[in-house]
Amino acid sequence: MTGFSEAESVTLDLLKKKMAEFARERNWDQFHSPRNLLLALVAEVGELSEIFQWKGEVPKGLPDWKEEEKQHLGEELSDVLLYLVRLSDICGVDLGKAALRKVELNAIKYPVSQKQNQNQTNGTTNAHTTTAINTSNDNNNTEEITG
Amino acid sequence: MTGFSEAESVTLDLLKKKMAEFARERNWDQFHSPRNLLLALVAEVGELSEIFQWKGEVPKGLPDWKEEEKQHLGEELSDVLLYLVRLSDICGVDLGKAALRKVELNAIKYPVSQKQNQNQTNGTTNAHTTTAINTSNDNNNTEEITG
Amino acid sequence: MTGFSEAESVTLDLLKKKMAEFARERNWDQFHSPRNLLLALVAEVGELSEIFQWKGEVPKGLPDWKEEEKQHLGEELSDVLLYLVRLSDICGVDLGKAALRKVELNAIKYPVSQKQNQNQTNGTTNAHTTTAINTSNDNNNTEEITG
Amino acid sequence: MTGFSEAESVTLDLLKKKMAEFARERNWDQFHSPRNLLLALVAEVGELSEIFQWKGEVPKGLPDWKEEEKQHLGEELSDVLLYLVRLSDICGVDLGKAALRKVELNAIKYPVSQKQNQNQTNGTTNAHTTTAINTSNDNNNTEEITG
Repeated sequence: MTGFSEAESVTLDLLKKKMAEFARERNWDQFHSPRNLLLALVAEVGELSEIFQWKGEVPKGLPDWKEEEKQHLGEELSDVLLYLVRLSDICGVDLGKAALRKVELNAIKYPVSQKQNQNQTNGTTNAHTTTAINTSNDNNNTEEITG
Repeated sequence: MTGFSEAESVTLDLLKKKMAEFARERNWDQFHSPRNLLLALVAEVGELSEIFQWKGEVPKGLPDWKEEEKQHLGEELSDVLLYLVRLSDICGVDLGKAALRKVELNAIKYPVSQKQNQNQTNGTTNAHTTTAINTSNDNNNTEEITG
Repeated sequence: MTGFSEAESVTLDLLKKKMAEFARERNWDQFHSPRNLLLALVAEVGELSEIFQWKGEVPKGLPDWKEEEKQHLGEELSDVLLYLVRLSDICGVDLGKAALRKVELNAIKYPVSQKQNQNQTNGTTNAHTTTAINTSNDNNNTEEITG
Repeated sequence: MTGFSEAESVTLDLLKKKMAEFARERNWDQFHSPRNLLLALVAEVGELSEIFQWKGEVPKGLPDWKEEEKQHLGEELSDVLLYLVRLSDICGVDLGKAALRKVELNAIKYPVSQKQNQNQTNGTTNAHTTTAINTSNDNNNTEEITG
């Protein structure tokens, strides 16, 4: 990899192709069943969690992390991504297309309300707090606050 | 979204920007701390697992799944992806760059061996089985068979 | 530990006390905040998943697993349990009491129906399949088929 | 359940028997394969995480949580426990025995050092911080600080 502009244009499709080729070259297609890949994904999420587990809350941008730690974090984030892309491919799901669609669905589900605009001015919002409290009653509201 | 060619070119950078805008418009930046997003990611991985939990092993391509089920799967895969992209952004990690680098590291770690080429002809390989058995001794070998 | 009869009587309360003592002796109480413990639990679930990730479906009782593998499995299952017990304690939840109550709630939620009794004779049941399919509509039905 | 003294004596063995009976009565043994149960466990860990996901760090004992929220938390902790107990049973692992053994192994792995005793006096410790930083090099040190 050479530079920023290249990284900026990394598509999900490129990663999908790289991984399909990687598995084929090593004769690993036989192991890449949907549930095998799902469990591998869960294992990687576990490693990602391990990085954060004893730290208490950490500020955005991770200002106090050593370069070595941030690099390790990038590797674990990547492992999750790569298995996710591979799992999607093996399941026949177009992940890029699905993700764009999901963002659109979220925009419908969580419209930018007048109240939220007002709260932006105040620097706070009640909307999210409310949905967080209603977790048990309205499961969907808290799940997908992704953007 | 209009068609296949557009979806093919979905970059991680595009998703990052869409989500940053989404959060800003709704005044949700305040909730998007690293560990909040990590736990939200774990929650979505749970929902993804729920789809597969009672099914036993399922074949590649999910030939027997209803269209509705596949769409639901696409949504859960997307939720994981969107939180992963957002978490990376909030941590200051360039996920596309990190993922390309990880693929290269994996290629070094798991070279395409003569044996594997031979096994490709035989339609099987022992390499992976071996690493799976050695889990407790050589943790790294089994974690990252991503490609 | 000396034998089977002792293990049979392992209470959640005993484990809670052992872990509280363990943390206190090592001055680790300071690290055992709810979310730290939750992420540690997620990390252990990841290690548990890693054991199963490349195996495809495995039969009950794990007849083909080496003793070493089963021991490793027991350790990872234990790690999940120990963090779960510790997390419950730190959150002020009586886990044993909550678990007994949950079993009772599940019995109300999933009554032993005439149909299920009939299916037992036939060696199959449709009830579970139905709930699995309805995942997106009736989230609760598939989540808690624990017993 | 009638009172505290009963809850205090809840054994893993009791929960195992209750769940085996529950599954048998509903003809659900057919669904309780190791990997089905593992994925169900992961799904429940996801629901547990969802409870904590937007809260930022929360203090021990959850002083500000509503009774309803704490009850919901108890249910999700229980769901994780019940699937864990069931998974262990189906795998032929004596979870109580394994957990006691793991506590003993942890005590050997993390001896109560002079330094830690000294730090207890000071109200802090460096040991844990050090292992947290060394995550990538010494994986085992940070994983199992359970007690």
